[in-house]
Amino acid sequence: MSAGRVEYAASLSAIKEAAQRIAPYCHVTPVFTSSTVDSLLHKSVFFKCEVFQKGGAFKFRGACNSVFSLAEEEAQRGVVTHSSGNHAGAVALAAKLRGIPAHIVVPVGTPQCKLAAIETYSGRVVQCAATMDAREATCGRIQRETGAVFVAPYNYGPTICGQGTIALELLEQVQPALDAIIVPVSGGGMIAGIAMAAKSLQPDIVILAAEPTGSNDAADVAAAKQAGQLVPMAKPQTIADGLQGRLGDLTWPIVRDLVDGVITVSDQDIVAAMQICYERLKVVVEPSGAAGLAAAMSPQFLHHPQWQRLQRVGVILCGGNADLAAKGFWELWR
Amino acid sequence: MSAGRVEYAASLSAIKEAAQRIAPYCHVTPVFTSSTVDSLLHKSVFFKCEVFQKGGAFKFRGACNSVFSLAEEEAQRGVVTHSSGNHAGAVALAAKLRGIPAHIVVPVGTPQCKLAAIETYSGRVVQCAATMDAREATCGRIQRETGAVFVAPYNYGPTICGQGTIALELLEQVQPALDAIIVPVSGGGMIAGIAMAAKSLQPDIVILAAEPTGSNDAADVAAAKQAGQLVPMAKPQTIADGLQGRLGDLTWPIVRDLVDGVITVSDQDIVAAMQICYERLKVVVEPSGAAGLAAAMSPQFLHHPQWQRLQRVGVILCGGNADLAAKGFWELWR
Repeated sequence: MSAGRVEYAASLSAIKEAAQRIAPYCHVTPVFTSSTVDSLLHKSVFFKCEVFQKGGAFKFRGACNSVFSLAEEEAQRGVVTHSSGNHAGAVALAAKLRGIPAHIVVPVGTPQCKLAAIETYSGRVVQCAATMDAREATCGRIQRETGAVFVAPYNYGPTICGQGTIALELLEQVQPALDAIIVPVSGGGMIAGIAMAAKSLQPDIVILAAEPTGSNDAADVAAAKQAGQLVPMAKPQTIADGLQGRLGDLTWPIVRDLVDGVITVSDQDIVAAMQICYERLKVVVEPSGAAGLAAAMSPQFLHHPQWQRLQRVGVILCGGNADLAAKGFWELWR
Repeated sequence: MSAGRVEYAASLSAIKEAAQRIAPYCHVTPVFTSSTVDSLLHKSVFFKCEVFQKGGAFKFRGACNSVFSLAEEEAQRGVVTHSSGNHAGAVALAAKLRGIPAHIVVPVGTPQCKLAAIETYSGRVVQCAATMDAREATCGRIQRETGAVFVAPYNYGPTICGQGTIALELLEQVQPALDAIIVPVSGGGMIAGIAMAAKSLQPDIVILAAEPTGSNDAADVAAAKQAGQLVPMAKPQTIADGLQGRLGDLTWPIVRDLVDGVITVSDQDIVAAMQICYERLKVVVEPSGAAGLAAAMSPQFLHHPQWQRLQRVGVILCGGNADLAAKGFWELWR
């Protein structure tokens, strides 16, 4: 370990420990390829299908590592988190597997399918107002009342290390080596873990973030990378509702130092990528889950002076919890 | 080989030969499980995901075996078939891989996504009227003009044997052994191949057909099994547009002798099963592809005096070419 690396909230060794810890509970997700996508992009694309992870998204890796890292005494007091998305179900499921209580604070307006998932996994749903302040205050109250441990969705070492196990698997599954991995970014937990694991194992690999800009053209990760510091900015208004997090003091240093660039994608790009996932890969993705493919298909990537030479590209299909019922999809068939 | 078995159009040894022949071209498709489905049914269900087969459906196995079984001289004259569905794309792709011409007769009204697939695979599309007579007459004319070999979609030994390779894989992939396999049925090519392979390897395995009844309550396989002979009957008016074939003189004897029963499913059952595939398995299926799960979820199966004891059940998710664009699915996201 170099002296510089110990400042980070994750390390290759901690990610390898996470992999061992979560192995009894998590799936090793398959890697898919598509000759159609390859001919379209003139590259070899390897899709790491985290949609098939337990709970339908990569989030279960971090939640599982966080919950199973707790000492027995801590664990018995339970865990608490706030999330409107996949992290909520992931923490509930991990807690259920460990046999401890999970309090899940969800903002009003959370999709019904995600609430149902939390309850399937025996999580206790606590509704609050749809602001970050209300979410944090509610979590704080539950922590005081129950002694539950807060499991943060991204800005948290055990979470980052859990997500980093994606890269350990992917680099082992794809031979010869990948040239690059494209990872959807939000709070940075997944990309920080993947960047730390992948660059530790293969320093020349290129790690790129895929960030939705939404209708308000906001992209705070791209802005932060350009400025070299976190930039206060509105989150994008986007269909990629899973990508609404913010870089934190633990994820930002890794993103700053180990991520090579950010590719911004529009909602239209995301829907085009979803269409390829459904129609060609036969894989159900939610909008956030398709952001990596949208980036891989973009001129920003394909015509970039440095990146266009990258031939073997990993793309993380990070989540499959599309709320098809709310979209009226099932009515189309009846 | 018993004296009786040689009458059939398929045998275990021919299916094993097919497996070797198609191995360079076909995917070994994965088997998925879902804890949600298992708790719902109080069984262990193993989904053989033929949606991830080349061309998006199991049909490529039979087409590939048929095309690569031809002697070089025959093959050079090309192949011809008629199909409104997955068999069309499968034959076009197999012919492309062998480097020979494919003439695909399609009835007017064939979904655009299926026509596009045929053309992607360099098949020559020949449109005809939407009747079986017109389809057969058009194929006959092309055979006379070009000398092309007719590759039948189900009532054809090499097709049946190709589809049977599904069972060779599935029985190897699932340990301990399955108690039953549920297979969507149409012309009977897939279920005949699977029944022959599976019962040869494991005589006590139960093979069940899943047949849609549609709005006109027609189920000719169920009727044939009950009567002990083919029964002339209208095909069902169903959303399972891939299940419009008819048992033939080669598939019927195998279905008659080796298939243990038929479970009929309504379109509503099929949509409910699709919903589980998309929302839980994260797998895109077309309606026909979900008929097996619909049957596994039905009271006909779960409360059947003999079948309810079956604990370990294979279900074939046979095709994923849902025409989402035609359904207006993409508009929901824009």
